[in-house]
Amino acid sequence: MDHAGRLRRLQGALAESKLDFLLATHLPNVRYLCGARGATLFTDGRYIAQAREEVRGARVVISPQAPLAAAVEWLGTRLATQQGGAVKKVLGVEPESMTVGMRERLASGLRGKVQMRLAAPLVERARMVKDADEIRRIRAAVELGASLFRVALRKIRPGVSEVAVAAAMEFEARRKGAEGMSFSTILAAGARSAVVHGRASAARIPQRGFVVCDFGVILAGYCSDRTRTVHVGRPSKEALGLYDAVLEAQLAAVSAVRPGVTASEVDEAARNMLRKRKLGRYFTHSTGHGLGLEIHEAPRLALGQNQKLEPRMVITIEPGAYVPGKWGVRIEDVVVVTPSGCEVLSPEDKELVIV
Amino acid sequence: MDHAGRLRRLQGALAESKLDFLLATHLPNVRYLCGARGATLFTDGRYIAQAREEVRGARVVISPQAPLAAAVEWLGTRLATQQGGAVKKVLGVEPESMTVGMRERLASGLRGKVQMRLAAPLVERARMVKDADEIRRIRAAVELGASLFRVALRKIRPGVSEVAVAAAMEFEARRKGAEGMSFSTILAAGARSAVVHGRASAARIPQRGFVVCDFGVILAGYCSDRTRTVHVGRPSKEALGLYDAVLEAQLAAVSAVRPGVTASEVDEAARNMLRKRKLGRYFTHSTGHGLGLEIHEAPRLALGQNQKLEPRMVITIEPGAYVPGKWGVRIEDVVVVTPSGCEVLSPEDKELVIV
Repeated sequence: MDHAGRLRRLQGALAESKLDFLLATHLPNVRYLCGARGATLFTDGRYIAQAREEVRGARVVISPQAPLAAAVEWLGTRLATQQGGAVKKVLGVEPESMTVGMRERLASGLRGKVQMRLAAPLVERARMVKDADEIRRIRAAVELGASLFRVALRKIRPGVSEVAVAAAMEFEARRKGAEGMSFSTILAAGARSAVVHGRASAARIPQRGFVVCDFGVILAGYCSDRTRTVHVGRPSKEALGLYDAVLEAQLAAVSAVRPGVTASEVDEAARNMLRKRKLGRYFTHSTGHGLGLEIHEAPRLALGQNQKLEPRMVITIEPGAYVPGKWGVRIEDVVVVTPSGCEVLSPEDKELVIV
Repeated sequence: MDHAGRLRRLQGALAESKLDFLLATHLPNVRYLCGARGATLFTDGRYIAQAREEVRGARVVISPQAPLAAAVEWLGTRLATQQGGAVKKVLGVEPESMTVGMRERLASGLRGKVQMRLAAPLVERARMVKDADEIRRIRAAVELGASLFRVALRKIRPGVSEVAVAAAMEFEARRKGAEGMSFSTILAAGARSAVVHGRASAARIPQRGFVVCDFGVILAGYCSDRTRTVHVGRPSKEALGLYDAVLEAQLAAVSAVRPGVTASEVDEAARNMLRKRKLGRYFTHSTGHGLGLEIHEAPRLALGQNQKLEPRMVITIEPGAYVPGKWGVRIEDVVVVTPSGCEVLSPEDKELVIV
């Protein structure tokens, strides 16, 4: 883990935001900061063993009281020793994870000794650019995830339930050491393939039609995400056309990825390709998202997102086209932004498989 | 679902708290209220199909904007038509799920038209007492969950990894229709059986020793929770003694459950029995917890908890004893409080199984 790099990026961000301290409460941020020197983890007795195993870089305070109360106490001591001028120190809090209840307890514990301010998503921004250790972990997660598709291909047959296919994939993931799935496995067959978030159901795979498989694992804390669409039975010419259009859009978006390009330009690359084939209105979601400790994190590859891509960002590229009540296709890879473009992790299996 | 009952209980609670409205943001509370007439669900276009399938009783507002903004708009309309006197209406918010960011957006949307107040956990309290439909669902979840122990018994052998046993159980759960596990399966073998939250690891089951299996499923939205401890190889007299003591404590706590008894009295019943055997200090957690839409919900069966039990509360009874570095035993059932005592759901398999 690049302890020093994490610390450096965050110190810069804190200084820019004019914050003296940042209280991270969003759990993936807390986990990330466990690998940053200069950070202090507040936890309780239930997590002694886990903290010993997993924390690298951060200091650990195990407290008999609630972690928030321990943080208040720690901050009190720091403020007492640091107090010099009349200017109050500023504590940033994370507005999207700190609850109103926590804020009340924090304010009553701090009794005005510090100025509290809602912070920008500083840790989320730092997390966008991955260090070498993170990329190694994501690569391992994506490789494990990719191997589940071979299980799906063995299982997908007319009459088999979607959930039976998902269960076999999840069993394989667990057997290979995954902590769990990174989201509820999507297995959407026949007309259900048009449902973007078609979680595996008891529905049975029909004699003929697309099956969208969207699945990911968590391995050593990091997520994978992958979609492949297969066809059961002989595909019609129209079905082949739909698949080709989505694949073309996916490849176009992958080609658009390089440092300096905005997230929305990558989205546009996929969208334009589908528009050309008159499928634009069937592409009803965004082109992708960052992934790492969370299955969805910054940046978002969607219209109006001006975030510029940088080397070592890790994002999904997953356009799709869905005709309600009829069918749908989605193809998704995880890519790492490189200095000159991007690397697709486990790029195989992208030609249409017919089972 | 008992729409009318849910509504009645909540209306009473709102009136007692002098709230005109309650904005539920804790997702299990939102899900619960989807089965209550008089409630309105605010959601967005991604959940049209799911809302149609799952919402019973509540009205549904599908909005192109964020659900919180839709709630603000709805509230604005209601306030405009209801405004009579000069007294401001009071909106309760849930302090442990509403984030500081949401509160800011809410306040700026409402522009002082309503008085906001941090509400007590009203929905959590209502949820403690289950209606007939909920008890039916929990019973089904517990039965499915119980069947996984038979899979564990087939799999638990010296040399097999803990995670392989867990994976087989999880596969069976999925195959039988579970939406997922209600928590990360605990499979803790040999000396690891002393780790209270010993999530299944790559560690292999030793030739001889206890194996704690703590597992649960989610079925139709409701959780199950169950622990059985088995012994691999011939148990020593001391091991048998430990198991008997925990079983005795578990049965004592089950016997203590009836309406009017406090949560802490049930905890004491288990604790006293272990103290008598000089094992009190090895029982390092509380005796149990409510369960339903969440794996842990009110009431908590622990020291100092004065909540009185009522018919149709559903709780776990799960004492244990853990000697660090050596071994541990836990036995857990889900029970429903009845007018005269309690019913243990799927009470089988409680004698020590030796594999």
